[in-house]
Amino acid sequence: MKSTIYFKNKPAIVATSTICGPKESDGNLGEYVETRLLDDMFGEDTYEKAECKMLSHVIEKSIQNADIKLKDVDCLISGDLLNQIISSSFSAREFDVPYLGVYNACSTMCEALAISAVLVDGGYMSTTVAATGSHFSTAERQYRYPLELGSVRPPQSQWTVTGAGSSVVSDKKGFFPRITSATIGKVTDFGVTDVNNMGAAMAPGAFRTIYNHFKDTKRTPDYYDLILTGDLGALGSRLLKHLSKEKGFDLEKNHVDCGEMIYNIDEEEYQGGSGAGCSAVVFNSYIYKNMIKKKFNKILFVATGALLSTVSSQQGESIPAIAHAIAIENGVI
Amino acid sequence: MKSTIYFKNKPAIVATSTICGPKESDGNLGEYVETRLLDDMFGEDTYEKAECKMLSHVIEKSIQNADIKLKDVDCLISGDLLNQIISSSFSAREFDVPYLGVYNACSTMCEALAISAVLVDGGYMSTTVAATGSHFSTAERQYRYPLELGSVRPPQSQWTVTGAGSSVVSDKKGFFPRITSATIGKVTDFGVTDVNNMGAAMAPGAFRTIYNHFKDTKRTPDYYDLILTGDLGALGSRLLKHLSKEKGFDLEKNHVDCGEMIYNIDEEEYQGGSGAGCSAVVFNSYIYKNMIKKKFNKILFVATGALLSTVSSQQGESIPAIAHAIAIENGVI
Repeated sequence: MKSTIYFKNKPAIVATSTICGPKESDGNLGEYVETRLLDDMFGEDTYEKAECKMLSHVIEKSIQNADIKLKDVDCLISGDLLNQIISSSFSAREFDVPYLGVYNACSTMCEALAISAVLVDGGYMSTTVAATGSHFSTAERQYRYPLELGSVRPPQSQWTVTGAGSSVVSDKKGFFPRITSATIGKVTDFGVTDVNNMGAAMAPGAFRTIYNHFKDTKRTPDYYDLILTGDLGALGSRLLKHLSKEKGFDLEKNHVDCGEMIYNIDEEEYQGGSGAGCSAVVFNSYIYKNMIKKKFNKILFVATGALLSTVSSQQGESIPAIAHAIAIENGVI
Repeated sequence: MKSTIYFKNKPAIVATSTICGPKESDGNLGEYVETRLLDDMFGEDTYEKAECKMLSHVIEKSIQNADIKLKDVDCLISGDLLNQIISSSFSAREFDVPYLGVYNACSTMCEALAISAVLVDGGYMSTTVAATGSHFSTAERQYRYPLELGSVRPPQSQWTVTGAGSSVVSDKKGFFPRITSATIGKVTDFGVTDVNNMGAAMAPGAFRTIYNHFKDTKRTPDYYDLILTGDLGALGSRLLKHLSKEKGFDLEKNHVDCGEMIYNIDEEEYQGGSGAGCSAVVFNSYIYKNMIKKKFNKILFVATGALLSTVSSQQGESIPAIAHAIAIENGVI
């Protein structure tokens, strides 16, 4: 059993779209985000509806950016962190398009890209949209405490990104960032139980997928301009580098983490960003735009997810993690 | 945009496994279920852990029934109804196998089969496992009321099936029930808001997918021995027939519903079974075994899902629904 599948037709990411909240707009990458909200309610009366609207917004914008019509989209593949992935399902209700709901927590962007790539590469579909998002305020009240409680956050915690990202994957010819392979992650659990320390819970899952990717492809880390993890944060990123060094991989030179990049980290965010929207925003804005400009030509995008729920934690379970790696390389077909 | 994709290599469902609780064992199809529990706690101390254990059990058993080893499995594709699909993710933790989490509520079995079929048919993988399940007591306390409250159930309600089912999808040669096409559903919402009337919420989604399937394939309902919907229940099934008749399709002769079949319906179950486990148990036991015996040779399996959450209902949303149709036909390759 190998974990990596290869795409001989190299499906293109022909367009993307991103949206983010005010805090993310002020962060390091705000200028690259297509739609920057001044108000994270986005004109809605609940945070959940705002999250859903952000997702619908980027799906629609990405389709426009690809210069295609809704009827050209063969499938929407989407997921999010809310119970029963309601942001995705209610977004999908807005579009007259076949829909596959997916969930691998914050690794959902890469899962959706992997399934998109299979559908397009195999000739089953011509164009798909892969999307995900998250919202600080929905995540806090679902996973942690009501915001009104004003709970103090511990220093190992991260800040859930308010934002969403969408990619249009297509069999179009020409120069584009193209998906060349995908390494599907295995669920990995090193026994971390601290729900405020997602970086530590997810680092082993990220390492395992990256290890499998290099073992399967016989590549070394220097093959890529960037090895971009999802939302390990500063602490999780250090743990990943440490684990990799132990196994003979040096990720020091080209590993960066979306969670570490997105904010001007001050005290409040501690280890940086998290949430399904974190890697979705960073990849579909800063990374994608710089691939189009050929500043980056080969990246390994490894979104990471913590597969817990409040119920699993209440019942004494540790936090299983997963990561999927997508190799994206500039190319002309 | 068409909704149907075709599998030229016709991936085989080489083995299945099912498990169910005591109530389902006493139902119409109990004798076909591989593992029948006397106690729906399955030796665990919470219902959630019991649900997870059921899912792990059928995944493992189906791999054994396929006469293969765990290392021969290239991917596990699984989802369930619990928040953050913890049954699936914690089951996946038990297996050293790449994992894709999916969620389309009670249509998850068909979603997992569709993605499996694409991965195997396209040559990306040789063998995948598609699985899902549900548990009456986890669903009641998550979606409705604590069991201890003894709430009275209205007559349009259904009973969440305690059970799980797993299919092994493979590129193996020989005689098997084979997946020949998949019609991916669109989210459909006719404005039903009654969370006790899932049949009415889901019937339009089921109809739309069945309609798209026949439009795309240019087949008529009599092509199939059975058109098997997931868990519309008795009322939803009548609504589907009514909607179909309006549009010129006669489903009277060969439409059956898993929710209507699974129980000896007495007052308690009202409209019959529901839950992701409902169609997973019925398809992977009674239907699959009778396909192997060639009693059924061509079926259209249309698992149906209601994409609500407690939060969406509390915020005044109606219930969007989805259904995916999988054509399964006996054949030798």
